[in-house]
Amino acid sequence: MTTINNAHQQAVGQVSVPPRLLLGPGPSNADPRVLQTMGMPTLSHLDPAFVPLMNDVQELLRYTWQTDNEYTIAVSGTGTAAMEAAVANLVEPGDVILVGVIGYFGERLVEMAVRYGADVRIIEKPWGDVFTLDELEAGLKAHNPAVLMLVHAETSTGALQPLAGVGDLCHAHNCLLLADSVTSLGAAPLFVDEWGIDAAYSCSQKGLSCPPGASPLTFSDRAMAKVNGRTHKVNSFYLDITLLAKYWLGAARGYHHTMSSNMIYALREGLRLVAEEGLEARWQRHQTNAELFWDGLAGIDLTCHVPDAANRIPSLTTVAVPDGVDAGAVAKRLLREYNIEVAGGFSKLAGKVWRVGLMGYNSRPENVVLLLQALERILHE
Amino acid sequence: MTTINNAHQQAVGQVSVPPRLLLGPGPSNADPRVLQTMGMPTLSHLDPAFVPLMNDVQELLRYTWQTDNEYTIAVSGTGTAAMEAAVANLVEPGDVILVGVIGYFGERLVEMAVRYGADVRIIEKPWGDVFTLDELEAGLKAHNPAVLMLVHAETSTGALQPLAGVGDLCHAHNCLLLADSVTSLGAAPLFVDEWGIDAAYSCSQKGLSCPPGASPLTFSDRAMAKVNGRTHKVNSFYLDITLLAKYWLGAARGYHHTMSSNMIYALREGLRLVAEEGLEARWQRHQTNAELFWDGLAGIDLTCHVPDAANRIPSLTTVAVPDGVDAGAVAKRLLREYNIEVAGGFSKLAGKVWRVGLMGYNSRPENVVLLLQALERILHE
Repeated sequence: MTTINNAHQQAVGQVSVPPRLLLGPGPSNADPRVLQTMGMPTLSHLDPAFVPLMNDVQELLRYTWQTDNEYTIAVSGTGTAAMEAAVANLVEPGDVILVGVIGYFGERLVEMAVRYGADVRIIEKPWGDVFTLDELEAGLKAHNPAVLMLVHAETSTGALQPLAGVGDLCHAHNCLLLADSVTSLGAAPLFVDEWGIDAAYSCSQKGLSCPPGASPLTFSDRAMAKVNGRTHKVNSFYLDITLLAKYWLGAARGYHHTMSSNMIYALREGLRLVAEEGLEARWQRHQTNAELFWDGLAGIDLTCHVPDAANRIPSLTTVAVPDGVDAGAVAKRLLREYNIEVAGGFSKLAGKVWRVGLMGYNSRPENVVLLLQALERILHE
Repeated sequence: MTTINNAHQQAVGQVSVPPRLLLGPGPSNADPRVLQTMGMPTLSHLDPAFVPLMNDVQELLRYTWQTDNEYTIAVSGTGTAAMEAAVANLVEPGDVILVGVIGYFGERLVEMAVRYGADVRIIEKPWGDVFTLDELEAGLKAHNPAVLMLVHAETSTGALQPLAGVGDLCHAHNCLLLADSVTSLGAAPLFVDEWGIDAAYSCSQKGLSCPPGASPLTFSDRAMAKVNGRTHKVNSFYLDITLLAKYWLGAARGYHHTMSSNMIYALREGLRLVAEEGLEARWQRHQTNAELFWDGLAGIDLTCHVPDAANRIPSLTTVAVPDGVDAGAVAKRLLREYNIEVAGGFSKLAGKVWRVGLMGYNSRPENVVLLLQALERILHE
């Protein structure tokens, strides 16, 4: 036998984790019930005891998204994988795709749609703004796209794009509506069916208080009609929704990939917590704690980057960095001195904002009060 | 506000898991240390306390794979995602790709390479056989491919493809060697550098005794030279190794996706267990327990589907189903009466074999003895 090379046989200690309060744009701290449940023994992806847990996840996702969509599943990857699943399945080479860009995640939709061969058109507004219905209608008229892609909660800017009425507008122009709800699901009012959203995706580590790794995806019948009418197979085998559906839906449960039962346990527990609390109470809790934070910011001479409170994401606030303050240095001190994580801005907002998440399990008054006090001490000492 | 629809607000109980012994082709039971470690509090993907854990994973993967490859990372998804990452990055539209098909996972490589635009050529042998060096050389001469894709441990048939010398052969023909090591990593002798493998991928839930969800991937400098010379961007943003490398390697750690710290804790602990045991001892343990099983099979009048013991995967045995026996009914009784999971064959081997995994944590004499006894009671009662 060939000799074994022991150069990389590193002796490492056990994992040790500092006691962080995760108040950045995600991950948020997972609910302890979720972490406990995730650690239950692994089951096979095809075990008859596992299939009902998958069904629960689908049904609870329908509740959380306010949709009856049959094609409501979890992708085995992070929110970026679910985003790519939505884009890859809906875009065929040559399709005209209109993307509303009001921040980084709109830019990412452009990047993905281009990679999958779309003829991408863009409408843009400054980072922090949102589109009006009239602006969206003008875009639809000018470009006649197959899909309009919008970001409901733009994590890079803190802006919440109103979506009521957008689906009707799209459908009147024979266009599908895709909505990124990575930061809004489980935290902000979101009505997939009522708003006519045809494809939405999210993640587990924000409003749902789970670790990352299993990411919600829902397609309307309209979206599935486009998928089923494709003339080219989706490039991605892993993210092909027609293959995923054979695994998630129906009686056969054909093998496609080895789903992580532990991540499904976690997601199911996070969704169970949503159903126990009730959506209305949960959305209100996020709004109340966000307003507590916004009021408190004013008390220490800080302002929000998004001026109109109605356009702010209740689970993610962008705080304007005062002139002369080093945003990165403040974030580092929060982490080092208080174990509190907040994030800076990036790209067009680098150095100009802090991004503060009060998401799911972490949306609690004690976290608001602690962060305000820590910020005040660092900024005004 | 729109009225909330409570139709899907399902009241579900807490996750409850039967006490399964997972002796199928994976997942295997996770080591309890892995499950415990996975439940540590979530950290941000960019936390300075998290980055060293990523580095440990890379270094321990290099040991486990016996490679010095810089580009050794974990993909945020299951083994199928790592497989697709390998194919998507190495294949450019129009490339001639030669796939050696000796089972289902070779067919899956064909399917993926076709989706990514390759001109795919195939060499085939019956399910259970392996290729000789001469047969591979003939294929290289006939097709002059850019990449030869082989499955080291064909999970659908139980056959272990010898790979010593194959890399040299490929490189002499100006071709890269890709090897699927989903079922061999951490269980069977595997020398990525010594055997000249340019791209390999695996999963976490077999030889590494973790839940599924973070999947090893390694690319040689030769493979990265092909990636860096691409004229088309990889379709997949999520799996683009040049973007993943900006996150995994070097000082900057630029954001790409929100990696699951909990899955990385788990993978690190699984790899730490490999390093503690030592590869030589671990490989020997798998071989010894496999031989105990093979000998025991003979004692209850069962035979292995792969006739030559030297060509059998030590962590996954295909047992020939005797004439007149209903393979599925036996598997169902093992599960129902003894909580033991084994899998049937599929496609060309449907109804003809059982697939029995003795992987990682589960490769222990007590499991061999229990399974043999349960099989005997069901078959010979």
